Amino acid sequence: MTPLRVQLEQDDIPTHWYNIVADFKNPPLPPLGPDGNPVSPEQMAAIFPMPLLEQEMSAQRWIEIPDEVRQIYAQWRPSPLCRALRLEQALGTPAKIFYKYEGVSPAGSHKPNSAVPQAYFNKIAGTKKLTTETGAGQWGCSIALAGQMFGLPVRVFMVKVSYEQKPFRRSMMQTWGAEVFASPTNITQAGRDALAKDPNNQGSLGLAISEAVEEAAADPNTCYTLGSVLNHVLLHQTVIGLEAKKQFEKIGLYPDVVFGPCGGGSSFAGIAFPFLADKAAGDKRATNLRCVAVEPTSCPTLTKGHYAYDYGDVSGYTPIMKMYTLGHDFMPPGIHAGGLRYHGASPLISQLLHEKLIEAQSVAQIGTFEAGVQFACAEGIIPAPESCHGIRAAIDEALRCKISGEPKVILVNVTGHGHFDMSSYDKYFAGKLEDYDYPAEAIANSLQHLPKVG
Amino acid sequence: MTPLRVQLEQDDIPTHWYNIVADFKNPPLPPLGPDGNPVSPEQMAAIFPMPLLEQEMSAQRWIEIPDEVRQIYAQWRPSPLCRALRLEQALGTPAKIFYKYEGVSPAGSHKPNSAVPQAYFNKIAGTKKLTTETGAGQWGCSIALAGQMFGLPVRVFMVKVSYEQKPFRRSMMQTWGAEVFASPTNITQAGRDALAKDPNNQGSLGLAISEAVEEAAADPNTCYTLGSVLNHVLLHQTVIGLEAKKQFEKIGLYPDVVFGPCGGGSSFAGIAFPFLADKAAGDKRATNLRCVAVEPTSCPTLTKGHYAYDYGDVSGYTPIMKMYTLGHDFMPPGIHAGGLRYHGASPLISQLLHEKLIEAQSVAQIGTFEAGVQFACAEGIIPAPESCHGIRAAIDEALRCKISGEPKVILVNVTGHGHFDMSSYDKYFAGKLEDYDYPAEAIANSLQHLPKVG
Repeated sequence: MTPLRVQLEQDDIPTHWYNIVADFKNPPLPPLGPDGNPVSPEQMAAIFPMPLLEQEMSAQRWIEIPDEVRQIYAQWRPSPLCRALRLEQALGTPAKIFYKYEGVSPAGSHKPNSAVPQAYFNKIAGTKKLTTETGAGQWGCSIALAGQMFGLPVRVFMVKVSYEQKPFRRSMMQTWGAEVFASPTNITQAGRDALAKDPNNQGSLGLAISEAVEEAAADPNTCYTLGSVLNHVLLHQTVIGLEAKKQFEKIGLYPDVVFGPCGGGSSFAGIAFPFLADKAAGDKRATNLRCVAVEPTSCPTLTKGHYAYDYGDVSGYTPIMKMYTLGHDFMPPGIHAGGLRYHGASPLISQLLHEKLIEAQSVAQIGTFEAGVQFACAEGIIPAPESCHGIRAAIDEALRCKISGEPKVILVNVTGHGHFDMSSYDKYFAGKLEDYDYPAEAIANSLQHLPKVG
Repeated sequence: MTPLRVQLEQDDIPTHWYNIVADFKNPPLPPLGPDGNPVSPEQMAAIFPMPLLEQEMSAQRWIEIPDEVRQIYAQWRPSPLCRALRLEQALGTPAKIFYKYEGVSPAGSHKPNSAVPQAYFNKIAGTKKLTTETGAGQWGCSIALAGQMFGLPVRVFMVKVSYEQKPFRRSMMQTWGAEVFASPTNITQAGRDALAKDPNNQGSLGLAISEAVEEAAADPNTCYTLGSVLNHVLLHQTVIGLEAKKQFEKIGLYPDVVFGPCGGGSSFAGIAFPFLADKAAGDKRATNLRCVAVEPTSCPTLTKGHYAYDYGDVSGYTPIMKMYTLGHDFMPPGIHAGGLRYHGASPLISQLLHEKLIEAQSVAQIGTFEAGVQFACAEGIIPAPESCHGIRAAIDEALRCKISGEPKVILVNVTGHGHFDMSSYDKYFAGKLEDYDYPAEAIANSLQHLPKVG
């Protein structure tokens, strides 16, 4: 038999997260408040607990993972590194394709890697309740699960259109004990204002963020949690790449190219940062390593955005951050990879791209589902639409290898399963999916609204 | 950290399935044809390939698993044996609860353990096409996946009411390339007859079986596949228990009691038979071992049925088999564990129960969902409604241990995840589930219709 899965033992779960900031030649630019000055930890403490703020600001290379968190991780981690042997055969490529499969978590994606420590550090800091927003529900499910593990009540503001169209992720959150509200609600001022303007408001991620932040800011015992973009979220996700490195060592290989889907950036960071650490350390195996963030052509933040200070949310309530952005009021077309419909990208990933330490590419929607189906038929696993973006890029690379004859080692982060996205696959099979044109005019317009700095 | 998952390596995937017939003191009674004589392999060869018929009739203790099958198994096997540590803590029990988790397969249940070898042996026997029926879709998904792996087209007759109410399992089957039909169809005589009588016929498993068997019988290149009940299906599932035994050896423990949900019986057989082998061999660790099949109170085949010859299907097209049965025309109430709504039970399991080598117990619907939610909150994984039956029994045993103070080692087969059953959880949370009364009158009536033998 050809080895298909590289497994590690429970003791191989990393003991520390890797903080890439320690290897930055130029320190990251700070987030700025409404007064144009860097935001202080004290200001952020209204909605985040101190241990997470310390991680957010830290320049320390290794940050210890508490045993309590590793004990929860042990439920599904180390996640498998799998050889996509049947996919290679179907493609007829000399490349070796490996995927790190994060769909094995109870919530079905990589998101619990950060939800669990966020709940833990909130718990030890004395937080009594968590709030968050969720779109399609991947993050909401993960924080509901994590809150349950540490006995913390969780309130999730779920975008109303998703609440109604994707009821089963709501059911999962409720199974894990979370309270789920269709946003906009009558509970918050932001929600009431929106409903006063339009009683049929279907909600948006930006509005749901406003509701969740408002609740957290109003109650000193309640904190807000976010599933991507911020430094500490990316930090937590590095368990993915740290495990992958150990798994490659076990089989005596090293990747030539690493692909990951990229929306806010947490899953891409998770798989790529630990390999970039090798590059920073001058490890010869990593000299020619390429790390490629893959985004939708319809929301081309990294490939078509500006590198500028902008708000993290649509309404402009958050501090401004230096990042690639399409403008905070850019509204991407309704593609099915809801997790990749974000106007910005993590400041850390943005800086890496700006300094040419990573690459970015964009792929169109129909091709991502085509890749997802090809992957499902060869490997069995039906990937989430977000994951299909990385898979599309990995397949394209493998096909280039077929022409060039190069036996490259390709690694792709398959971030989750598509069990709650089958209606999107149905639309693909029915020929009802669109490849949206590059939304040049909308982006040009929203880029006019970047905040002025300095 | 406390060890949570017992993992094995790819090379630990069993090389042989265990055939419990070799350890039967009394040979199993043969299935009988319409003439009252034992059915010959030649008669069955109209719908099954010879290699599977040989397994069906075999009394050989160990049957080799082909490398091609083990190579596909390696995608997700060996499946993890997990310690339900947080569940133990939540219950405050001195018992140690372990679960074998079969939801890690791409189809999300234990069913591919048999679907893969069934597709393989059909392939090498020259079969060109497979047919099957499916209710909620667990088996249909598994055979669609397996057919895809071996390049065999698959046609699935899916009970119409499920086709319409559970569209996402249909989407999965289509993603893996299967053709899926809402049964009754116009394709078969059985379907046309049913539609002529009632154009709004919503279908039944019995009718879907008739359609799938008719297609297979009509074409010498097409074979029929079944997901439970038959000896060869139970045989394939023994990989579950064989792995579990190796995993317990790795941690130096042995179970005191083994629970598995039981409908047709394949998942219960899978976990229990390899432990019964120890008992048959006089292994002292197994002297007091109990194996308990758990069924719904609303479909109490093993606990309230007769041990008699009966048809395997509702319409009476199949050979008759000696088994516990509620009568082939018994229609169980519409509980949400669709996989446990079967009037009979595997002849092998029936004989074991009749000879008092295993036990059976029944649990009511609402309590199974209560157990499922408790399991989900403690362990993260949201179990399928079928799996909730075994979990209910395991929790009850652990609670008895709390009273008695016995530190028993409990093993339960968690056969699949509930990602496609969230609407059932919704109904549970909304208080809309029922505990059906024991359907005594309906059973008494259907037992009148048992075929006469001899």
